[in-house]
Amino acid sequence: MNFNSILQEVFQEAKTFPVIGNVASTIPELSTVNPDKFGIHLTTIDGEDFGIGDSNEKFSIQSVSKALTVAMAFTFLDEKIWERVGVEPSGNPFNSLVQLEYEKGIPRNPFINAGALVIADMLVSKLSNPKEDFLGFIRMISGCNTIDFNLKVAQSEKETGFRNAALAHFLKSFGNINNDVETVLDFYFHQCSLEMTCQELAHSFFFFANEGKTRYGQQILTKSQVKRLNALMQTCGFYDESGEFTYKVGLPGKSGIGGGIAALYPKNFVVATWSPRLNEKGNSELGMSALELLTTKTGMSIF
Amino acid sequence: MNFNSILQEVFQEAKTFPVIGNVASTIPELSTVNPDKFGIHLTTIDGEDFGIGDSNEKFSIQSVSKALTVAMAFTFLDEKIWERVGVEPSGNPFNSLVQLEYEKGIPRNPFINAGALVIADMLVSKLSNPKEDFLGFIRMISGCNTIDFNLKVAQSEKETGFRNAALAHFLKSFGNINNDVETVLDFYFHQCSLEMTCQELAHSFFFFANEGKTRYGQQILTKSQVKRLNALMQTCGFYDESGEFTYKVGLPGKSGIGGGIAALYPKNFVVATWSPRLNEKGNSELGMSALELLTTKTGMSIF
Amino acid sequence: MNFNSILQEVFQEAKTFPVIGNVASTIPELSTVNPDKFGIHLTTIDGEDFGIGDSNEKFSIQSVSKALTVAMAFTFLDEKIWERVGVEPSGNPFNSLVQLEYEKGIPRNPFINAGALVIADMLVSKLSNPKEDFLGFIRMISGCNTIDFNLKVAQSEKETGFRNAALAHFLKSFGNINNDVETVLDFYFHQCSLEMTCQELAHSFFFFANEGKTRYGQQILTKSQVKRLNALMQTCGFYDESGEFTYKVGLPGKSGIGGGIAALYPKNFVVATWSPRLNEKGNSELGMSALELLTTKTGMSIF
Amino acid sequence: MNFNSILQEVFQEAKTFPVIGNVASTIPELSTVNPDKFGIHLTTIDGEDFGIGDSNEKFSIQSVSKALTVAMAFTFLDEKIWERVGVEPSGNPFNSLVQLEYEKGIPRNPFINAGALVIADMLVSKLSNPKEDFLGFIRMISGCNTIDFNLKVAQSEKETGFRNAALAHFLKSFGNINNDVETVLDFYFHQCSLEMTCQELAHSFFFFANEGKTRYGQQILTKSQVKRLNALMQTCGFYDESGEFTYKVGLPGKSGIGGGIAALYPKNFVVATWSPRLNEKGNSELGMSALELLTTKTGMSIF
Repeated sequence: MNFNSILQEVFQEAKTFPVIGNVASTIPELSTVNPDKFGIHLTTIDGEDFGIGDSNEKFSIQSVSKALTVAMAFTFLDEKIWERVGVEPSGNPFNSLVQLEYEKGIPRNPFINAGALVIADMLVSKLSNPKEDFLGFIRMISGCNTIDFNLKVAQSEKETGFRNAALAHFLKSFGNINNDVETVLDFYFHQCSLEMTCQELAHSFFFFANEGKTRYGQQILTKSQVKRLNALMQTCGFYDESGEFTYKVGLPGKSGIGGGIAALYPKNFVVATWSPRLNEKGNSELGMSALELLTTKTGMSIF
Repeated sequence: MNFNSILQEVFQEAKTFPVIGNVASTIPELSTVNPDKFGIHLTTIDGEDFGIGDSNEKFSIQSVSKALTVAMAFTFLDEKIWERVGVEPSGNPFNSLVQLEYEKGIPRNPFINAGALVIADMLVSKLSNPKEDFLGFIRMISGCNTIDFNLKVAQSEKETGFRNAALAHFLKSFGNINNDVETVLDFYFHQCSLEMTCQELAHSFFFFANEGKTRYGQQILTKSQVKRLNALMQTCGFYDESGEFTYKVGLPGKSGIGGGIAALYPKNFVVATWSPRLNEKGNSELGMSALELLTTKTGMSIF
Repeated sequence: MNFNSILQEVFQEAKTFPVIGNVASTIPELSTVNPDKFGIHLTTIDGEDFGIGDSNEKFSIQSVSKALTVAMAFTFLDEKIWERVGVEPSGNPFNSLVQLEYEKGIPRNPFINAGALVIADMLVSKLSNPKEDFLGFIRMISGCNTIDFNLKVAQSEKETGFRNAALAHFLKSFGNINNDVETVLDFYFHQCSLEMTCQELAHSFFFFANEGKTRYGQQILTKSQVKRLNALMQTCGFYDESGEFTYKVGLPGKSGIGGGIAALYPKNFVVATWSPRLNEKGNSELGMSALELLTTKTGMSIF
Repeated sequence: MNFNSILQEVFQEAKTFPVIGNVASTIPELSTVNPDKFGIHLTTIDGEDFGIGDSNEKFSIQSVSKALTVAMAFTFLDEKIWERVGVEPSGNPFNSLVQLEYEKGIPRNPFINAGALVIADMLVSKLSNPKEDFLGFIRMISGCNTIDFNLKVAQSEKETGFRNAALAHFLKSFGNINNDVETVLDFYFHQCSLEMTCQELAHSFFFFANEGKTRYGQQILTKSQVKRLNALMQTCGFYDESGEFTYKVGLPGKSGIGGGIAALYPKNFVVATWSPRLNEKGNSELGMSALELLTTKTGMSIF
């Protein structure tokens, strides 16, 4: 498979699509990004790298980080995670409180905000220096020591993240947050503010495609654990558009409102895209289209 | 009508009913009250007072205060209130977030917690010293200068009121709270911590029965305004048991999880009951039964 | 009170209001009515009649009939009715299936379609010749032998009433319809097709205002039973606009998508309006406005 | 891979699990089946067959048929299907009406009952003799001419399927059923009454694993179409337990309340299980456990 020319094709073809969607406006600090940035980076299981467009520019990974926090929590707690959060698609928007009320504070899955807050709470409980330790984990799996939080973005979310504050207090009212709400929110806003390039993001997700082993050889999770998290990304990684993404792209992945997507074909490759214009479900319009082109052109999807 | 003997009858008969329900457990400071307290106080439109049982003992009026804050807000804003809160029964529990999500942050009515928080926000905006000014208003309408907040109860709610904090942040995320969430919650927890006896509560509600005029002659609201707030208490005063209360008792009223209820027959009387055991909807079981007996025995209901 | 001149005033003033809303379009046979028809009829407790506008023209009373079927069922079953239907406002549209699913087939109240279908099922079980017997009951309470079903309208509903068929099958699936679904729907579509003038409608509702006794002296229900049904109309008579109607008009009443409304002031009067243009909640826009004017001008509301 | 010994192991181990769940009780004719039946049949992509237990006994495939009707509709309409039904997990029970009300009659996916009824309506519109033609299609893809409807089961569902009748009328009220409700229900109850053995079921699903080609060489769908339907089974095939199944088993599949499950590993194998005891979500408890064992032991899952 000549990924070089395929990425070229995908990139050129995607750029001819009608320009749809807008940059996320809920977080002021994020709204200033150039909406027309577009990058793709693909890393094969053999470690070969293929990048195109703005694939070496940093962006805010936002909710893509949820796959990484759940992986880190999984290293500590394994299946115990599921005592406090489910593995089912929610069928609802990412920031919905409705289901939480009916289901007594147990979020449907760790990729909606409520679930990610519970995972954040688990990490806050487990880690000595939660933010530092998590950052260390990210640098380790990505093999990149320059990855960092964007403190302005974290601060911006803190000042405007009333919906997440509502979710956290709601979870706390059900007893499903053990630490201070403020501490958990602070951790969560920091994890979301992580900045990476497409290449760094692809490298961070490498272990999901490589039976639990990073690009640099560390075994983060077992083969079986990684399969389970991949399955979870497949059914829940794109909020109430997970079915659509699975239907069209056929790869496990995770999106963020910074416009990033990480996806992977187990034992084959990991790919990251970045385009800040979001569709109405909060997923990167162009990123999804590019990935659909990729699996159509290569015939490489898990189904 | 010999209210003295009727209250005797009601009181004795109600005490023979099976003991049902428990004291509210969500606010630690409230959970220590003697569950078997029971008092009734009725004040006629002519100013005659009839009390029985523990009618002169102070209790936490909690959500009964919502009728008083909305009345105070009505003095400032009149029908403008309804730009930010509705007049419809919610058909949902008092602390539900579900409808708020579907209806973009406009609470169904001012008697569910979400609505009362919006009213609290209005008062915080309007009053120079919100808590002091509101307390002054209460003392004025009740003619009782010893009425006060219970700071321990307010503090206890602050420490455990995660659900209300969730509601307030959720409202803020929809732009329906203008002040700091903490300031609004602080006001709200104080208003709920008001302590009154049945007699003081009946006197505070006197103006609702008296075409807007307090027992001491001040015109708080116009005749028409009071009719509208009475109508609102009728359809919404008892959360998702408002229909049941209207069906059985047939008087406008407002309940609180401290076990208090204030109800009134326009141009005839106002009555307050206190019994801390709550049914599953969060309303005083014995208080509702006593009021049903009262309207059955007297034939005095608005229908 | 000079009702003659008051009705004149109300009628003239209401006619100056902006023309809002459209004729119900869901039932083809109903959609042909002249949208600008407008009539009011008021009957005092002493039996005096006051009519204005198109008050002597027949119209389809539709859901106004629900108050009459529940009254008839109440004569047979009294409080047993509430084993199969509730007394709470639904907070949802009249034809919603949502709550029914969450609440296992027990409709919130007898005035939403689901509840009225359960009441229809009760009558079908109790009456030898359900449609004829119900019509006899209506003729008796109204004192008018020419009142009849409109078979074309009933047929039209049958052909297009898929939503009601859905509700009836749904109720049946929960075991809350005992008879054949078709039989119950047939009865229901006939009851809704009843045609009356404003005057006939006011006379039919007379007993609700007169402590259970018709204009012609028959005691249909006890004083206490009638109070309870009035209470129910107050909280539930206008679907998810019941709070608004109570707030603005302050009288128990029942509306229909034919544009009719019947309302009453216990021990004082009963009033019927007809104007086919409906607001978005399915209630007569002009009828509601006229009744608001009436209670504002007379100061006669129950609150 | 020695599937013979693996199936032996899976079968023996699964039989030691605690006996959980009951036979479906909603359809009388189905409730008489022996709850302890248990069979597995696996067919490799090379056409090798491996069966164990009651794998050659006929059972009612029920909702497993939904994957086959959607495949047949896909042959006619391809992506046009999605104008009337979605591709998202519902997050709700299989027979829920709630989402349908909020989403104006467009079912979330073709595997919940509402969606399957819409697919049935499409087939009724497209086929000259809907039931016969569909049966012909099934016999063709399975290579088995003895497969047939069970008319008693179809009749039993017709007599008791009030919930499905409610769904069909509800869809009709939104204009998302074009044919007579009765005709569509009749087709649907017949498709669900199909009886197959595990082997026949595995053979029927063979083309999903074989890039669209049946075991006998007919190309039913293109490679790309089959990928998409497999993706859909992955996210939606097990109702509100789809996430769980994906998480634990990691294969696309479809379950039925007759206790059957068909699942597949693209380009590798197709497997069918039968055990009539259902868990609370309506999926075969033992079947799911057996499939989890199978993918754990073989390491063969798509993730």
